[in-house]
Amino acid sequence: MFHLGGMHASPSQLDFGVMKISMHAMSAELFCNMLGNLSAILDKGFAHATNRKFDPGVLLASRLAPDMLPLTRQVQIACDVAKNAVARLAGQEPRRFEDNETSFEQLRARIASAIDYIKSIPASALEGAETRDIKVPARERTLEFKGLEFLQRFAIPNVLFHVTTAYDILRHNGVELGKNDFIAGGRAP
Amino acid sequence: MFHLGGMHASPSQLDFGVMKISMHAMSAELFCNMLGNLSAILDKGFAHATNRKFDPGVLLASRLAPDMLPLTRQVQIACDVAKNAVARLAGQEPRRFEDNETSFEQLRARIASAIDYIKSIPASALEGAETRDIKVPARERTLEFKGLEFLQRFAIPNVLFHVTTAYDILRHNGVELGKNDFIAGGRAP
Repeated sequence: MFHLGGMHASPSQLDFGVMKISMHAMSAELFCNMLGNLSAILDKGFAHATNRKFDPGVLLASRLAPDMLPLTRQVQIACDVAKNAVARLAGQEPRRFEDNETSFEQLRARIASAIDYIKSIPASALEGAETRDIKVPARERTLEFKGLEFLQRFAIPNVLFHVTTAYDILRHNGVELGKNDFIAGGRAP
Repeated sequence: MFHLGGMHASPSQLDFGVMKISMHAMSAELFCNMLGNLSAILDKGFAHATNRKFDPGVLLASRLAPDMLPLTRQVQIACDVAKNAVARLAGQEPRRFEDNETSFEQLRARIASAIDYIKSIPASALEGAETRDIKVPARERTLEFKGLEFLQRFAIPNVLFHVTTAYDILRHNGVELGKNDFIAGGRAP
């Protein structure tokens, strides 16, 4: 459990089990935390648009560069990379989600579905996943990793990339967010 | 080892030891990988400014929002959070770096120093770090975590936040970067 002054945050360990470094702790737990934070960040974006009386869809279509993906796709991909990574580490074929969200509410529902899906995979299914052969179908070729390297070099950077970029898009568009929204209870050093 | 079609990437395991999930693998190895990628991303930013014949310092001072930190600070903080986290997980007081960089070259040197510092901490010093009490001095109060939660909820999100935001600042300013620069050999799904 960690605490910030008088505040007590609900630790992920209560949801997932004992405090021990494991592939599950560093994938499922980490990703569920970050997806939960992403959902709260989106709530602030929606509230900002509502308060300022502009169409929230403007934020969903916003990008940091013309050839970067807009907010909606950042959220969809964050969910996909997270749920697919945990499924693959568990030796399962990931369930595919449709990419049909057109509102903040639908994106929040997608995040909730991704979290539910990740939590449906038992921690025991990831035991020994560090040495499992992981194949990731990509556009031109299949990427191949051992489980630990997949987590270190692909899954974690990828999930965090899309959650951060979603945050950065909203921040760039004037939504009042701070590092505490991203770190969820943490604080910049 | 992972390979992408015919290419072989130099795996972090060769630098750090056997393939086994550990606090060291999920902090020191992960952070050194990401700081190495950040250094290569900065190189592309510098080359872009040079090719377009504008002062590279313009990029160093760029931000995504008026009240977000500029590129230089994103890089400094990414280094600090990474090196400080590994030191704290090892039960050491982190060595402080001055914040005096004013050029891409100096930022690359800072990243190299952070990587050297992280690599100077032996993996054995992080054994059992998942249950170590970690205190992080912050502006108004001291944050307290157990080691695993510190890594999951504070250190990894924090390092990745600043590396991604550095990438996003450069990308927003027209530097030709892709997810492969960020994931280093990986590719978006």
